[in-house]
Amino acid sequence: MKPLKDFTPAQKEALKTETQKRYDNFSAEKLNIDMSRGKPGPDQLDLSEKLLTAVSGANDYKSENGFDCRNYGLLTGIPECIRLFAELFEAPENNVIIGGNSSLELMFDYISQCVTNGAGGKPWGQLPEVKFIAVTPGYDRHFAIAEYFGIKMINVPILSGGPDMDMVEGLIKDESVKGMFCVPKYSNPDGISYSDETVKRLAEMRPAASDFRVIWDNAYMVHGLYENDDDKLLNVFDEAKKHGNEDIFVMFASTSKITFPGAGVSALAASDANIKMITKRMTMQIISYDKLNQLRFTKVFKTSDDIKAHMRLHAEILRPKFAAVLETLEKELGGLGIASWNVPKGGYFISLNVETGSAKKVGDLCKKAGLILTNVGATFPYGIDENDANIRIAPTFPSPAELKKAAELLCVAVKLVCLS
Amino acid sequence: MKPLKDFTPAQKEALKTETQKRYDNFSAEKLNIDMSRGKPGPDQLDLSEKLLTAVSGANDYKSENGFDCRNYGLLTGIPECIRLFAELFEAPENNVIIGGNSSLELMFDYISQCVTNGAGGKPWGQLPEVKFIAVTPGYDRHFAIAEYFGIKMINVPILSGGPDMDMVEGLIKDESVKGMFCVPKYSNPDGISYSDETVKRLAEMRPAASDFRVIWDNAYMVHGLYENDDDKLLNVFDEAKKHGNEDIFVMFASTSKITFPGAGVSALAASDANIKMITKRMTMQIISYDKLNQLRFTKVFKTSDDIKAHMRLHAEILRPKFAAVLETLEKELGGLGIASWNVPKGGYFISLNVETGSAKKVGDLCKKAGLILTNVGATFPYGIDENDANIRIAPTFPSPAELKKAAELLCVAVKLVCLS
Repeated sequence: MKPLKDFTPAQKEALKTETQKRYDNFSAEKLNIDMSRGKPGPDQLDLSEKLLTAVSGANDYKSENGFDCRNYGLLTGIPECIRLFAELFEAPENNVIIGGNSSLELMFDYISQCVTNGAGGKPWGQLPEVKFIAVTPGYDRHFAIAEYFGIKMINVPILSGGPDMDMVEGLIKDESVKGMFCVPKYSNPDGISYSDETVKRLAEMRPAASDFRVIWDNAYMVHGLYENDDDKLLNVFDEAKKHGNEDIFVMFASTSKITFPGAGVSALAASDANIKMITKRMTMQIISYDKLNQLRFTKVFKTSDDIKAHMRLHAEILRPKFAAVLETLEKELGGLGIASWNVPKGGYFISLNVETGSAKKVGDLCKKAGLILTNVGATFPYGIDENDANIRIAPTFPSPAELKKAAELLCVAVKLVCLS
Repeated sequence: MKPLKDFTPAQKEALKTETQKRYDNFSAEKLNIDMSRGKPGPDQLDLSEKLLTAVSGANDYKSENGFDCRNYGLLTGIPECIRLFAELFEAPENNVIIGGNSSLELMFDYISQCVTNGAGGKPWGQLPEVKFIAVTPGYDRHFAIAEYFGIKMINVPILSGGPDMDMVEGLIKDESVKGMFCVPKYSNPDGISYSDETVKRLAEMRPAASDFRVIWDNAYMVHGLYENDDDKLLNVFDEAKKHGNEDIFVMFASTSKITFPGAGVSALAASDANIKMITKRMTMQIISYDKLNQLRFTKVFKTSDDIKAHMRLHAEILRPKFAAVLETLEKELGGLGIASWNVPKGGYFISLNVETGSAKKVGDLCKKAGLILTNVGATFPYGIDENDANIRIAPTFPSPAELKKAAELLCVAVKLVCLS
């Protein structure tokens, strides 16, 4: 297709008429498709059915060290679950804590800890101003956490190898800049993995704030779509140690998109000093997390290889879904010069950028025709995308047939906004 | 036995010699008994074995409204679990939220919310001073939460019908007094249930602080030992509503001592205004709690009557354990005038009061002989029992044979301290 700007007025009018007709047809179908959240489909959940009966009866409830997982105790988790996450995180077992069902909750709680009791320095809540670097576009729930705690966000764009490090290195000279959220592998929504250079530059940062913290949300660490073309992320702790910076990074992940979303296991990895602060708080907060669920998980998955084999089954389901959307985008919008998008090798999203000032209108048109997208703007702090250009597509939950329809409708809406 | 103070010097000497010998015999046994925590025994956990297989396979994972519990969603819980807790709490379903595996975590989190974002007024963390009423003796983890958040505690003794309300009514005239923790039924450690008068006086309080909050920790709401002699607690929400005070109370409980400790389900009940504030925060904190675990619970327990029937099985196991300790206390210490204790009708503890200045010494003697008690002092804020008199006995975990030995050793230690 030639660029839309090269269309003659008559060609534009013809395309507009045709596109409007297609839109009206979609509207008449009374669709009800939700592409708003990174939610696995039921077929993905079926892959983990074994978990339901993994701990099923008498004398089946003990961890490998003989501990009765039905009772209180083992604050930081059962040994086999700690070991498995240590393997996935490439971190020492002593630096791993197993949490509840949600890594988001662990992150929220860690920020909360920094606000009320500090991250080694003065509690952030007692400072006149606390700022965070917000890598944009990014994950709306990260931004919501910062906003909830009154942390002011400063946007830093993500480039092809991760956040714009020149900007980051400039901003951290301000002592009130206390941290940042990163999704370093298959980022939400762009599917970008941080390059070795980016990880190294992050690891050797010299922030003015001695209690600067990076929330290293490794949400998609094993979520590649292609076994033989998986991005490889540098171990940030190994790099940070070279510069005495290991306290800066706190890594989080969960099995929500490995087993059952919201019924899996979360974990964090951190330096000795951070682990000490976090576990001290935990002794007041909880007696122990759900060890039976940790046991279910580790009865089915014993090593990181077991996880990786399982993730290949997810990828088999997801590849055609991503392909359905990407092919439609290419077919409908390719060459028109009115939209660009990433072709992710993993993660849960496709990030679509339309013309400045168009995204909200596209979202509204889709909504009216029965397709729910992630709230336009949500990929930026405070829900404000200044360019009004970014749309996050979550292609995992709908069926392939729905997806094809949804992607077509989305493209029709993009064209219609450009043409009107 | 006649009071120790009426013993002749020779009688005292004889008792001392005999008691020392008994202590030495215990020491020689190299005991290893833990009576420190309110932890159910393995036989109690066996009662809930059905839970392990309650959700076991294909198409078994939907809640009654058809929701797939394996996936994200239903922030405040599945309907059948909300309904069940609403029944137990005697509260409307709209005022109930289901949490993770720990009510302690819910309470910690609620206080955290008050500190960072307020309970309707200014965030507590922004005030020069925040105080809480600490009902003593009480639950060490409540005190630890307050201490962690820098909330200053003021002791108010518990009387036979609950906290000393004259003192409470005096203290709440101070605007910096922002709340209190209550275990209103079978209190920890005294096993006291608040009288109707106490509940009514709490419900009609007029605290100077408009955002005064009572953490109503209903941990032992269905944990009576005697079916036909169960304490009946007045519904605090019903009472509070009569005085426009429904925002003051936030109620918490979990199934940790109903099913599996640390692998059960927690819940809270609160006023419309509080529920709104809590759920708003939750949308930033978590996508949803573990609904599969809620489903397991509600597949086995459908109504509060099912719970109550199940709790009778617990009581059958616990009655002989409480009896073993109480009989030993009576036999060894009865009439001596050197110790007093409660005879609880429910809950998880026996509260033993020894002579002023003796409790730590008793704890040390027990420890040396291999019996771990709850840290002496832990039943008071900051771990400071000014009288050094209170010892919490947790008789649920050890076997009956161990318990008998442990209780004897404890009594021997009490006598030895008095005699030396």
